[in-house]
Amino acid sequence: MALSKKPVNGMKDILPDEMQIRDYVQQVIKDTYRSFGFTPIETPCMENIANLSSKQGGENEKLIFKVMKRGEKLKIEEAKTEEDLADFGMRYDLTVPLVRYYANHVNELPAPFKALQMGNVWRADRPQRGRYRQFMQCDIDIIGEPGNLAEIELILATTTTIGRLGFEKFEIRINERRILKAMAAYSGFAEEEFDTVFIILDKMDKIGMDGVAEELLKEGYAKESVEKYLALFDAVAKADDGIRYLAKELSGFLDPEVEQNLLEIITSVEGAKTADFQMVFDPTLVRGMSYYTGTIFEIAMPELGAACGGGGRYDKMVGRFTGNDVPACGFSIGFERIILLLMESGFTIPKQPEKAAYLIEKNYPADQLAEVIAKAQAERAAGKQVLVVRMNKNKKFQKEKLAGEGYTTFEEFYADRKGDNYDSVKNA
Amino acid sequence: MALSKKPVNGMKDILPDEMQIRDYVQQVIKDTYRSFGFTPIETPCMENIANLSSKQGGENEKLIFKVMKRGEKLKIEEAKTEEDLADFGMRYDLTVPLVRYYANHVNELPAPFKALQMGNVWRADRPQRGRYRQFMQCDIDIIGEPGNLAEIELILATTTTIGRLGFEKFEIRINERRILKAMAAYSGFAEEEFDTVFIILDKMDKIGMDGVAEELLKEGYAKESVEKYLALFDAVAKADDGIRYLAKELSGFLDPEVEQNLLEIITSVEGAKTADFQMVFDPTLVRGMSYYTGTIFEIAMPELGAACGGGGRYDKMVGRFTGNDVPACGFSIGFERIILLLMESGFTIPKQPEKAAYLIEKNYPADQLAEVIAKAQAERAAGKQVLVVRMNKNKKFQKEKLAGEGYTTFEEFYADRKGDNYDSVKNA
Repeated sequence: MALSKKPVNGMKDILPDEMQIRDYVQQVIKDTYRSFGFTPIETPCMENIANLSSKQGGENEKLIFKVMKRGEKLKIEEAKTEEDLADFGMRYDLTVPLVRYYANHVNELPAPFKALQMGNVWRADRPQRGRYRQFMQCDIDIIGEPGNLAEIELILATTTTIGRLGFEKFEIRINERRILKAMAAYSGFAEEEFDTVFIILDKMDKIGMDGVAEELLKEGYAKESVEKYLALFDAVAKADDGIRYLAKELSGFLDPEVEQNLLEIITSVEGAKTADFQMVFDPTLVRGMSYYTGTIFEIAMPELGAACGGGGRYDKMVGRFTGNDVPACGFSIGFERIILLLMESGFTIPKQPEKAAYLIEKNYPADQLAEVIAKAQAERAAGKQVLVVRMNKNKKFQKEKLAGEGYTTFEEFYADRKGDNYDSVKNA
Repeated sequence: MALSKKPVNGMKDILPDEMQIRDYVQQVIKDTYRSFGFTPIETPCMENIANLSSKQGGENEKLIFKVMKRGEKLKIEEAKTEEDLADFGMRYDLTVPLVRYYANHVNELPAPFKALQMGNVWRADRPQRGRYRQFMQCDIDIIGEPGNLAEIELILATTTTIGRLGFEKFEIRINERRILKAMAAYSGFAEEEFDTVFIILDKMDKIGMDGVAEELLKEGYAKESVEKYLALFDAVAKADDGIRYLAKELSGFLDPEVEQNLLEIITSVEGAKTADFQMVFDPTLVRGMSYYTGTIFEIAMPELGAACGGGGRYDKMVGRFTGNDVPACGFSIGFERIILLLMESGFTIPKQPEKAAYLIEKNYPADQLAEVIAKAQAERAAGKQVLVVRMNKNKKFQKEKLAGEGYTTFEEFYADRKGDNYDSVKNA
């Protein structure tokens, strides 16, 4: 029986053109993040299933690809639930594995620890256009820095990277989980209602203020609370300085250090930024993951209608592994979105090596082939990309195809049918 | 309950020191292979389980991490076998996925197609020291080139890479599946016995000629065949030119083109090589995978007692997917072994950027922090690695630790307790 040519449902093969751009973008990310002192690390793609099912991953925990037990541990007849059959799971993000890694190796790591991770994650989402079940994430995290130096460096490192990739006029939207909570408390929502309220608020982009009001009322919350809540967003939007306005209005509900903290981040980033972007306070920014405890932020590209990454502070997650909380903050680039935007914009990679193709006639003598290859070796050592291939019957078509792959120089090697000599023809 | 800090059993976290070397080696591999015209590609880490269980992977098929079906497809009560529960599996090598990829995209790919893959593979081996259940493979393959230009380019590309990583005095051992078969046939073994004979022959390194003889006899093969077989290996070892000797001796059993083919490969590689190694004909070389059809080869480092990769020709695998055979040949670097050897040898990475650390006193004024960070930004843009951190109480210890991470320049920023000014101290 013939085997299946297709990749598994919802995952994709990466073709040479896209791969070239991915490699280039990864290199820019790596070089830029390294210049900020971030250290590359790697964790296995699988984690113990208990670590992935600890209510830190929100909705993603429902999307885990589970890995079946093996050998004697797999008891199919006795199995009642998935837990009986699976011991490992594919990671759905890089944050949970990072925190486990940190907890495991804390004594071997610098303090604070500035980690860079680039790796695939897996989510068993319903397959849909442009959304894949295996995709690359690029995260930087700072563990062990309680102050906003962490946020400032994370935002500068990420925006410098995005800027180097040619993106302009984007925004870093910033908010604070404590502002989200204070706004809800101020409006009269009970603490156990916050999560649902934030899930609805998160749809503001799509359904607008009226839509949010409608959904909140449908959920059964008091009309008074809903109206007070939305009036507050309205007032912030109209205020000259949303953060200062809210700090005053929410007095009694909000720790005063939040205002100071956010203003410092915004001022420092604006003062040291190297890319073309704006810091924007956005009180409607929610960020889904329940592990965030403080600042949250997102890269928005209004001209492209796209969010291209985000992150925030999660000071309580290390404690889940070690019993002692350690402050932590991270920023994740939406790698796949960035690649898609670059591909759609017809992006070309700067500074490619010169590419030469040697076309060798089929019956070219073997003993002389070594000389041709030695010549290719010398050109490669000097930095050129040299392809040595057999000449096709339709040489013109072959050269057109090679030109399409970026080859600009062609050299042809012919056997001399009359005697011992061979001949080479060069044309650019 | 506290979560588990350990990675899953048999897999490992990669710490910063090792990661730095891995990144460097990957870069050398990528740059070198690209200069030979190999094109990076990527396939998903999972494949349909049927593709992985098609008898092409030999023993590795017993070591597949299987991925459980999801949602309605998972019927635990009705399940009788593993096949009922799993639909995907983690790839155990990069060759089967490459061939599927080629079959799927042949019309979009150059011909011949020269692929470079670097990616993790998974094997549920019994965990043991230095052997992990997730590990990196680096493969190059040429699909669509029937002649030995493929072998020559694969061997040159791989040895150039190994040489650039600093390895010397290694060997490329080469053999041919057809020589293996002809030697067995010549000695009187039946074709259905070949696989078992080769598995035993493959132990020559470890158990020697006597050990091989003993195991073959224990398997019940005729004493005459066993003696004739081993005498032949003995004679080849004593011959001036093993390939020519065998070609003559095996006349009638061996296609004469095999001799010509191997001699051409050896001559061309020796004539164009840029690294310090020897081509060595080794008639005891077996290579486990049953998909090989012609030349097989291996990198041996006699001084280090290690094999660091191998490959060969597999002309029949594409046909399993498309119905039409296409010639193919590949070479896989033993990436993890190379990393281990480099780590053990105290390898240091050439050409690192200058690393500077800014130490900032705890109560340094926020408004002036922006200036310090802007200065760091300028140094980063100029190619330096700059770390901005809070100054610890024990500054001396902090600087010692940073020096251990490669930081050579330190700059300290103090708040001026008496007034508005701040002060910076620089020391190298």
